Amino acid sequence: METTSRVREILSWYPSDNPGTLANLYRLLMHGRLAGTGKLVILPVDQGFEHGPARSFAPNPPGYDPDYHIQLAIDSGCNAYAAPLGFIEAVAGKHAGQIPLILKLNNSDTLSKGHSAESAVTGSVKDAVRLGCVAIGYTIYPGSAARNHQYENLRALAEEAKAHGLAVVTWSYPRGEGITDKKGETAVDVAGYAAQIACQLGSHVVKVKPPADFIYQPEAQKVFEKYNIPWKTLADRARHVVQSCFNGKRIVIFSGGEAKSSEEILTEVRGLRDGGAFGSIMGRNAFQRPREEAIQLLRQVGEGAWVASDGLRLLLAGPMAAREWMRQTLDRGRAAYLAGRILRLEALTRPTLENAVQMLRDRGVVVGAKLQLTPEWASRDKLAALADEADLFLR
Amino acid sequence: METTSRVREILSWYPSDNPGTLANLYRLLMHGRLAGTGKLVILPVDQGFEHGPARSFAPNPPGYDPDYHIQLAIDSGCNAYAAPLGFIEAVAGKHAGQIPLILKLNNSDTLSKGHSAESAVTGSVKDAVRLGCVAIGYTIYPGSAARNHQYENLRALAEEAKAHGLAVVTWSYPRGEGITDKKGETAVDVAGYAAQIACQLGSHVVKVKPPADFIYQPEAQKVFEKYNIPWKTLADRARHVVQSCFNGKRIVIFSGGEAKSSEEILTEVRGLRDGGAFGSIMGRNAFQRPREEAIQLLRQVGEGAWVASDGLRLLLAGPMAAREWMRQTLDRGRAAYLAGRILRLEALTRPTLENAVQMLRDRGVVVGAKLQLTPEWASRDKLAALADEADLFLR
Amino acid sequence: METTSRVREILSWYPSDNPGTLANLYRLLMHGRLAGTGKLVILPVDQGFEHGPARSFAPNPPGYDPDYHIQLAIDSGCNAYAAPLGFIEAVAGKHAGQIPLILKLNNSDTLSKGHSAESAVTGSVKDAVRLGCVAIGYTIYPGSAARNHQYENLRALAEEAKAHGLAVVTWSYPRGEGITDKKGETAVDVAGYAAQIACQLGSHVVKVKPPADFIYQPEAQKVFEKYNIPWKTLADRARHVVQSCFNGKRIVIFSGGEAKSSEEILTEVRGLRDGGAFGSIMGRNAFQRPREEAIQLLRQVGEGAWVASDGLRLLLAGPMAAREWMRQTLDRGRAAYLAGRILRLEALTRPTLENAVQMLRDRGVVVGAKLQLTPEWASRDKLAALADEADLFLR
Amino acid sequence: METTSRVREILSWYPSDNPGTLANLYRLLMHGRLAGTGKLVILPVDQGFEHGPARSFAPNPPGYDPDYHIQLAIDSGCNAYAAPLGFIEAVAGKHAGQIPLILKLNNSDTLSKGHSAESAVTGSVKDAVRLGCVAIGYTIYPGSAARNHQYENLRALAEEAKAHGLAVVTWSYPRGEGITDKKGETAVDVAGYAAQIACQLGSHVVKVKPPADFIYQPEAQKVFEKYNIPWKTLADRARHVVQSCFNGKRIVIFSGGEAKSSEEILTEVRGLRDGGAFGSIMGRNAFQRPREEAIQLLRQVGEGAWVASDGLRLLLAGPMAAREWMRQTLDRGRAAYLAGRILRLEALTRPTLENAVQMLRDRGVVVGAKLQLTPEWASRDKLAALADEADLFLR
Amino acid sequence: METTSRVREILSWYPSDNPGTLANLYRLLMHGRLAGTGKLVILPVDQGFEHGPARSFAPNPPGYDPDYHIQLAIDSGCNAYAAPLGFIEAVAGKHAGQIPLILKLNNSDTLSKGHSAESAVTGSVKDAVRLGCVAIGYTIYPGSAARNHQYENLRALAEEAKAHGLAVVTWSYPRGEGITDKKGETAVDVAGYAAQIACQLGSHVVKVKPPADFIYQPEAQKVFEKYNIPWKTLADRARHVVQSCFNGKRIVIFSGGEAKSSEEILTEVRGLRDGGAFGSIMGRNAFQRPREEAIQLLRQVGEGAWVASDGLRLLLAGPMAAREWMRQTLDRGRAAYLAGRILRLEALTRPTLENAVQMLRDRGVVVGAKLQLTPEWASRDKLAALADEADLFLR
Repeated sequence: METTSRVREILSWYPSDNPGTLANLYRLLMHGRLAGTGKLVILPVDQGFEHGPARSFAPNPPGYDPDYHIQLAIDSGCNAYAAPLGFIEAVAGKHAGQIPLILKLNNSDTLSKGHSAESAVTGSVKDAVRLGCVAIGYTIYPGSAARNHQYENLRALAEEAKAHGLAVVTWSYPRGEGITDKKGETAVDVAGYAAQIACQLGSHVVKVKPPADFIYQPEAQKVFEKYNIPWKTLADRARHVVQSCFNGKRIVIFSGGEAKSSEEILTEVRGLRDGGAFGSIMGRNAFQRPREEAIQLLRQVGEGAWVASDGLRLLLAGPMAAREWMRQTLDRGRAAYLAGRILRLEALTRPTLENAVQMLRDRGVVVGAKLQLTPEWASRDKLAALADEADLFLR
Repeated sequence: METTSRVREILSWYPSDNPGTLANLYRLLMHGRLAGTGKLVILPVDQGFEHGPARSFAPNPPGYDPDYHIQLAIDSGCNAYAAPLGFIEAVAGKHAGQIPLILKLNNSDTLSKGHSAESAVTGSVKDAVRLGCVAIGYTIYPGSAARNHQYENLRALAEEAKAHGLAVVTWSYPRGEGITDKKGETAVDVAGYAAQIACQLGSHVVKVKPPADFIYQPEAQKVFEKYNIPWKTLADRARHVVQSCFNGKRIVIFSGGEAKSSEEILTEVRGLRDGGAFGSIMGRNAFQRPREEAIQLLRQVGEGAWVASDGLRLLLAGPMAAREWMRQTLDRGRAAYLAGRILRLEALTRPTLENAVQMLRDRGVVVGAKLQLTPEWASRDKLAALADEADLFLR
Repeated sequence: METTSRVREILSWYPSDNPGTLANLYRLLMHGRLAGTGKLVILPVDQGFEHGPARSFAPNPPGYDPDYHIQLAIDSGCNAYAAPLGFIEAVAGKHAGQIPLILKLNNSDTLSKGHSAESAVTGSVKDAVRLGCVAIGYTIYPGSAARNHQYENLRALAEEAKAHGLAVVTWSYPRGEGITDKKGETAVDVAGYAAQIACQLGSHVVKVKPPADFIYQPEAQKVFEKYNIPWKTLADRARHVVQSCFNGKRIVIFSGGEAKSSEEILTEVRGLRDGGAFGSIMGRNAFQRPREEAIQLLRQVGEGAWVASDGLRLLLAGPMAAREWMRQTLDRGRAAYLAGRILRLEALTRPTLENAVQMLRDRGVVVGAKLQLTPEWASRDKLAALADEADLFLR
Repeated sequence: METTSRVREILSWYPSDNPGTLANLYRLLMHGRLAGTGKLVILPVDQGFEHGPARSFAPNPPGYDPDYHIQLAIDSGCNAYAAPLGFIEAVAGKHAGQIPLILKLNNSDTLSKGHSAESAVTGSVKDAVRLGCVAIGYTIYPGSAARNHQYENLRALAEEAKAHGLAVVTWSYPRGEGITDKKGETAVDVAGYAAQIACQLGSHVVKVKPPADFIYQPEAQKVFEKYNIPWKTLADRARHVVQSCFNGKRIVIFSGGEAKSSEEILTEVRGLRDGGAFGSIMGRNAFQRPREEAIQLLRQVGEGAWVASDGLRLLLAGPMAAREWMRQTLDRGRAAYLAGRILRLEALTRPTLENAVQMLRDRGVVVGAKLQLTPEWASRDKLAALADEADLFLR
Repeated sequence: METTSRVREILSWYPSDNPGTLANLYRLLMHGRLAGTGKLVILPVDQGFEHGPARSFAPNPPGYDPDYHIQLAIDSGCNAYAAPLGFIEAVAGKHAGQIPLILKLNNSDTLSKGHSAESAVTGSVKDAVRLGCVAIGYTIYPGSAARNHQYENLRALAEEAKAHGLAVVTWSYPRGEGITDKKGETAVDVAGYAAQIACQLGSHVVKVKPPADFIYQPEAQKVFEKYNIPWKTLADRARHVVQSCFNGKRIVIFSGGEAKSSEEILTEVRGLRDGGAFGSIMGRNAFQRPREEAIQLLRQVGEGAWVASDGLRLLLAGPMAAREWMRQTLDRGRAAYLAGRILRLEALTRPTLENAVQMLRDRGVVVGAKLQLTPEWASRDKLAALADEADLFLR
């Protein structure tokens, strides 16, 4: 596949990295169904360590098997598979090269309690190198009394990883003594702050939880009010987090968190998409479902966006009533479905397209009661580029 | 630009450093609008880490973007730009060489509370070397129960930095268990003490907060009284801090602290200037303003001082009434303004010049009711040198 | 693209390598137009160092520019681009990830003469890691008085490379004091021997020159005769070399050597293909042609093989006269040409297909005067797999 | 001084270097009278080691003193000063930061004879770091029997230098057993080859001797003839060398060699300029002259080019007879002379301008019997950029 | 004793050294009878290794004992004592701190012959540190086929020594394949070249043999003639060598070589003195004499010069006939002798004083038939400084 201009743009945000790290970021961005779009879906499976095997794998017993997860990640077109040392070692030699791997270098178990939130370092950069990984993963707990120790560990590991041409993916999960109200852990201000910290620590990719409709810090509350920072919709909150990641110049993806229904997931994903998220990490919500359902879920999300992007070409001939545009776009989408270009009928729903129209308005691509391309976008080339780079997954 | 005698003098205070470190101090002193004057304005942007992104950047949203800050530092003629690893990595490769960079090696976040004040080490000397920085930055909290750990970290990092030809810039912020009254954190005696500690730890440049009209330690109180150390004006207090920095033989600069109005900033800067400060670090007060306003603010301060220095030549012909000197000097200043030599009309105000006359008296350049050059200064060459090296910014 | 069974088979020959090295072999085998076929075309450009710039690049002056070569390798669908440090550094950061890179760690120039054949080490494994390469390349001169030094260098570098997850590609060129007759340098026995040495030194990929119709060692002459080892056709000789590479269980590719006409190249490539070669390294023959001609040449070779493989499906319905099969296969090929599946009419020639039929007989896929699938191959799935993995390029 | 687009372009050719190395290349390109033009004049003083003190310094005895040379380099506006360890240590602490320094890491003396040409390593990368240098320098002798040892030394030193953020400057001087005819040492084919080798070894800047009107290698002779590579004028030969340096994407500068008259030097410099050289290294020809003469020589060369570039603005109003353009341009030049913008009347000569017109034609800036700007160049901005970046020195 | 301005001046020539090295240079310059004068006498005893014990010590058998030499050096007021590891270890603990020690790190024996001149490394920088030495010593043989190896060894040892705050003393003795005529080893041009090489290698102190009335290199011969470099007297030749040592900005001392009569030594020393030498190394000529004679010899040389300097004060009152001045000066000298200020009557001879007068004329201190101070020198302070820093030993 040819390099897209979106991927070139993303790589340009990392001007201080060596070509080795850039090549691994490239591999991450150019693999799977979202290759080239600048969007990412990563399948992380660290719950066996974090929550114990029964809680993690009993809902879908094949998940006890390490081969299950990497194959799921490959078959559903994820960009990468992330796991602790044991799971990676169990599959890396057998599936070498088939999907970018991220070695999670620290992990926390829930057998011991009552201490500061702190993960153990369970893998090394050398492990990541010998296992052929493209990146290391590391979890920090901003708010924990042990946070400085975590930041310093990450600093040292990131320095070593970059020297070895690896990328750095940081899970930033606020938690611990500094956050006295459980709701604060997902508060929008805290989420943005935690994301900023991960970026400042030199991460290439940051993963946070979807921010909730809550502001935790009184000082932040004042600022949000004084400067009218919107935060009531998930899209607004995601936008704040993306902005907090160097104005969108660091890749930020959102985790799925608690297991949910497919419908809830898709709603959440749409909100994140509208806020400019680069993609998702879906652990439990993917691998705790039966395999086929999981694959389908991961696919559907992206396909809807592609259909909408594709429909923009209809407007090159001139303005068109929104209803008419939707009708024709759905027709094109169905044709694409028949041609195998898209695989899920769920991608062809009116709400999805309405969502998309709103997004296209927000980006200044279309205007008017009748849909009309803005002059800036009214060229076949611009639209082709948009479609090529269409955010197949989340936008 | 040719090396000035002031810069030569400053470098002479560091006779034990290797040429690599001296060359980097030189670069710091010879860059930007204040190049050669011995004065410094450094733009530090670590607030995203220290206070969170919304509180830091919402007042001027372009500041979410790492490219914004380095460009602001370049365009406003700062001597250097200082930031944590993430912000530096995001720009170093793209702007390589365009402005001296300082990598802040430790940073503190405010998500976790209730512990000893202690920053995490978030970057390394190797990072500073590969990123082309001229110096490392490090924050210590004298007064914290964890201070010794911080001093020891700084010692090790400074040793490594100096071996690699880098300079060491220390932020010295009294804080923690040892200072039971919040007002003590900026007390003049504490500020001088904290500055001394930073110098004794081998720093080349020390940054402290402007000292407040308060003495915290009873023992210090007695000494200030017994020896009549003046401390009622900001100039007096700044003078005490400068003296505490090896009698002015270490570069000491003052931070701006809380966001203020431009007028408040300029008043503060004047006080510091009169006390002999080498310059300022202006974080929030610069980047939280709209860009053009920030650039103008940074410019105005220096221009006023240049006008006053330039006016000294009028006295070569003989004594002159102060009022007449001021009139003519303002005329010359206006001409310089029209010629584009200075850019801010604000630099041409009577209070600024009165301030300057007082300073010139203090330095023994002029005497008398009628202004008159002292014999030592009554030569075209001496004045030219003074003007060349005019403390464009703060004195 | 999905992993093919051929690539899985090839990787199975390297059971002692760590997943990092396997992943990089995978990347090498899964990139470009031959991705998944187990065949390789690598574009090496070290001639500027080896023969000087004028002799190398004057025939096609854009080749003076390092960007030209990597773009040629990308556009023509090569599996990898190999070059010395200077050429790789000039492009790695800009084209990071776009094509697998091989850093040639030693190089020889022709300005100094009259010594043992010996290349200088001009790059390191650390260079290869920081530049994001998938493999190191190294040249040995079996026959040189300095060979042991070279073998020992390679050993050390290969050990380090494998620990860092890189693959090892060895150029094995007999030369030097031990080979007193110039013809001996390409003699078939010597070529097989040199290839064996490279494999025994732990190389993953070996590159040799096409073996000539000559036996150099008297002892080898006796053995070839006693055991009736065929060596009169290029295919026979290539087969001997492939067999010498661990019975085909190491990847062996052949260089193109002196610049030739396109026709000569294709004839040579066909002979090598028939002998089981895994592919080619084409330096001068590619980059000394005008760019479009070079791209076309690289494409044509592979397309012919694909057409033949595709035609096999015709036999699923039952036996078919060879002539009829050829007619229908050419028709399918033309359709594929019109559909843009293949780009060169040259791929659709009778000699190519006759060649292919012979190959299919050799492999036991077809038998009989009328062409007939053997029972082992008479299934849609087997043929699909064969076609998928069709040796698009050389077989 | 603001970064010029030419410097940005040059830095873009080094996409694999870390920001530290880029910053030091930037410092090299942005210092001195040629700052920002992409041209370089470096003053190297290693002759005391290479030829002995009397032969080197007796013609101008102040040259025995290490302070003399660095001051000459500073005063004449060179981009950098290069010398062995002793001379650098004698001045680095005293002149820290005042001019970019290049530590020559190997040197050869002429007291011992009859061996392979080989320099001793006389300094280290650590020395370069502690002395505040921007680059290391290293000499290779392609053609020497000991060349491989030299290449390998350079490789190791360059790797270490790059890791420390230094640039690498290579002196490439063909010499030794492989070049049996003394004339071969400066033959144009050999010069191009030696430059290519230095580039392939990962050098950022290459220094060669001006190539002579001679081809040494018979194989090269055939290629030059077959492809009509012009080599009869110095400009032609310089062009071949520049092309051999990655098509001009590596900085290549020429040494002055034997001491000559000022007139001879300027003629030589003009030839090199026309061939696209990036600048000169002038050792003996600079420091063996009386100081003032040396400074003037270095200045004059650049000023002539600036005058010509400046005159282009006259053509914005429309075509102009060449003679008239020259008259007006000379007038402007004289005004610039009076204004102190240029310092040497010699820069204002007709031959210089005629030279320049030819160059402007070659670059496609002007066409026609009457001078006329091509459409591409007919804008104030383009001309301003050209003038800003005017190749003040050599083009 | 107070630091003299001469020592301050000398230390200023080493601006790139760390304070540790400067402190050791200071110790070297401020110890013994010549303390503060900038002159040095070092007693080296490496002849036991170099020529065998009988040849070295039989003439004065107490010399077999290592305690003898260091005590001799202390008692005769030498600045330092230099020897190989064994001799230093035998005394360092016992005489710790009593005299600066120089550990000679390499030594050559004469039992093995017929190889390139090359010394063995017989001590380490760590040895020098643990033994409390102020400097390392190292011998190079410019002209030897093995010279590069020696230069590279010295480079590495010097780097380590400087990092440990030691000074570097280099014995530079031309010898070997490159110097086919034995007379070339002490030729004036070769001596100057060898001294220059030692300086360029980063030595703080260089030791060479007194240069002989001979020019070895034809190229040098031409230069000496063309530029009228005088070389007929020992003073002329010494002056050339001093100039070759960075124009006198590196300390250069001369060895005594073959054993001679006291008279010959003093004549030689006077010649060297007039040429600006910094002092002597006297091995055999000192320790092969009976102890008292050796001490006396070392003392006498310096005392004569002090007497002359002291006599200058007589001229403050006005001009004085030379004869009268000599009379009074001798009187003062005798008084000083009686007072114990000087110890040798030999210092009070007319030839010594005549010599001194000539020197004072040369330096522009006195003029006229009647001796008269030049205006520049006619102050008590200037003369006091001159006397203080009087070159007690050699000038």
